[in-house]
Amino acid sequence: MAEVLHFPAADAAKLEHYLPPPPSAQSAELARPFVTLTFATSLDSSLALAPGVRTALSGPQSKAMTHYLRSRHDAILVGVGTAVADDPGLNCRIAAGSDTAGADASDPSAVSAHQPRPIVIDPHDRWPLKYDSRVLATQRRGLGLAPYVMTAVCEPDETKRQLLESHGGKYIILGGNNDPSNGPDSGVRFRWEDVLANVASNGLRSIMIEGGGSIINTLLAPENSSLVDSVIVTIAPTWLGRGGVVVSPDRVYDNNNQAMAAARLKDIKWRQLGDDVILCGRLNSTSVE
Amino acid sequence: MAEVLHFPAADAAKLEHYLPPPPSAQSAELARPFVTLTFATSLDSSLALAPGVRTALSGPQSKAMTHYLRSRHDAILVGVGTAVADDPGLNCRIAAGSDTAGADASDPSAVSAHQPRPIVIDPHDRWPLKYDSRVLATQRRGLGLAPYVMTAVCEPDETKRQLLESHGGKYIILGGNNDPSNGPDSGVRFRWEDVLANVASNGLRSIMIEGGGSIINTLLAPENSSLVDSVIVTIAPTWLGRGGVVVSPDRVYDNNNQAMAAARLKDIKWRQLGDDVILCGRLNSTSVE
Repeated sequence: MAEVLHFPAADAAKLEHYLPPPPSAQSAELARPFVTLTFATSLDSSLALAPGVRTALSGPQSKAMTHYLRSRHDAILVGVGTAVADDPGLNCRIAAGSDTAGADASDPSAVSAHQPRPIVIDPHDRWPLKYDSRVLATQRRGLGLAPYVMTAVCEPDETKRQLLESHGGKYIILGGNNDPSNGPDSGVRFRWEDVLANVASNGLRSIMIEGGGSIINTLLAPENSSLVDSVIVTIAPTWLGRGGVVVSPDRVYDNNNQAMAAARLKDIKWRQLGDDVILCGRLNSTSVE
Repeated sequence: MAEVLHFPAADAAKLEHYLPPPPSAQSAELARPFVTLTFATSLDSSLALAPGVRTALSGPQSKAMTHYLRSRHDAILVGVGTAVADDPGLNCRIAAGSDTAGADASDPSAVSAHQPRPIVIDPHDRWPLKYDSRVLATQRRGLGLAPYVMTAVCEPDETKRQLLESHGGKYIILGGNNDPSNGPDSGVRFRWEDVLANVASNGLRSIMIEGGGSIINTLLAPENSSLVDSVIVTIAPTWLGRGGVVVSPDRVYDNNNQAMAAARLKDIKWRQLGDDVILCGRLNSTSVE
């Protein structure tokens, strides 16, 4: 039996200002989807105690909120590191009545009929996807969709390709940058413009970007901040301590080579949810003068 | 003319649960003072862009709150790094009517009559205190008290000693630990128990500990968390970026050598103040099982 989460309508209403417009209000063709960047950190801005260590941070209400947000987006995106570390289901477990796309609100145990498309950023095709991976098992139970895997590898693994396609997922092959400024071993990185244009070309009009650290940090960089429509951060009242997986974008300098704030939010709302706080805002592009 | 800050009584009332009891309710002799740990960070838990760089983070309401908190404590404490970097006034600029100890509430431009005693932790006596230092200039204007400087140097600088004493301040010579685990160059560190016992022995029944980074991080460590009565953190909706002065305690491991959360808060209240959020709580001693 799938766990079904409930998120009160009164709480949901307070998020509406930061969510993508309902599908009917959107034009059919978009150059890029509505992008919501969302994640949960400790007070010391860590997503997890260490790479690959699943770390319980936020409380049950915040978890329900995350699933409500998934019910409001066409797609959800994670990096391959998160996919490897967490073996996530990448589905929406909100109760049918809690979301605007809910099918059978009369059955309180029914999970939302709307499921977001999982997108996994995996430039080097290193995700060890198997028949038993949770995201595929979830699809087979009718509780989620199979992922689209974005890779820069021209001929991705054939077994995984068949596995994805038999579940309704697929590989998307995308050209990447091998940016030498990232260091010799850092490998391929996609341009966010390319990723989002491809998401839109697949008919997905909104996307919730969930992590992990390097995905979030690159989106907070000034060159990408104009691509993000909304930011929803959960902060748990805990310090994980030094050595965690930290959300903190690269340092930004002004024209006098003085360090400046890397990213600011505007249109801000903070609200306590359980013991956590939810911060909603929009990225204020940092202008270097 | 001194800048006078106002903090609304309605906002102040919401902090009351986390503040030291009024002097009349306290016993005359305390083994240690009531300790409030308070500081302001960015979303990526930085106090400043770099050591020694004064960084405007929190908004005007949060600044007024800080001065209101100072009006409610007998002493305020900073490390020598903060004293050197900021040349701070270390006084209370809240309007007389805003605090419980206010003298002349009929004059809206009057600053609080109560001033906290500044305490500067300076084990190696390296603070370049001068006649023109802001904290002394503030004392001469009748708007604050001269500091007590806690040092491990047996014979501190004679010129500074006279300067302190002529303003009503003094040196306090305290034994320190030269903990070899801190590395050969880290120098002397005081035990917090010794610092706080000395504060109490000076008749100061409450203290607000404001920074900087290493002061805060050591107080968040499990061995010191029982010394802290209250934690009030301001978070500004900004990411400063990598390389800042970070609040994040040392990593804590459980008995199986697995990393665990270093510090947690309980009795939690989050409240938006301007664009910032104020987090109030108490340290929940992390028990290693």
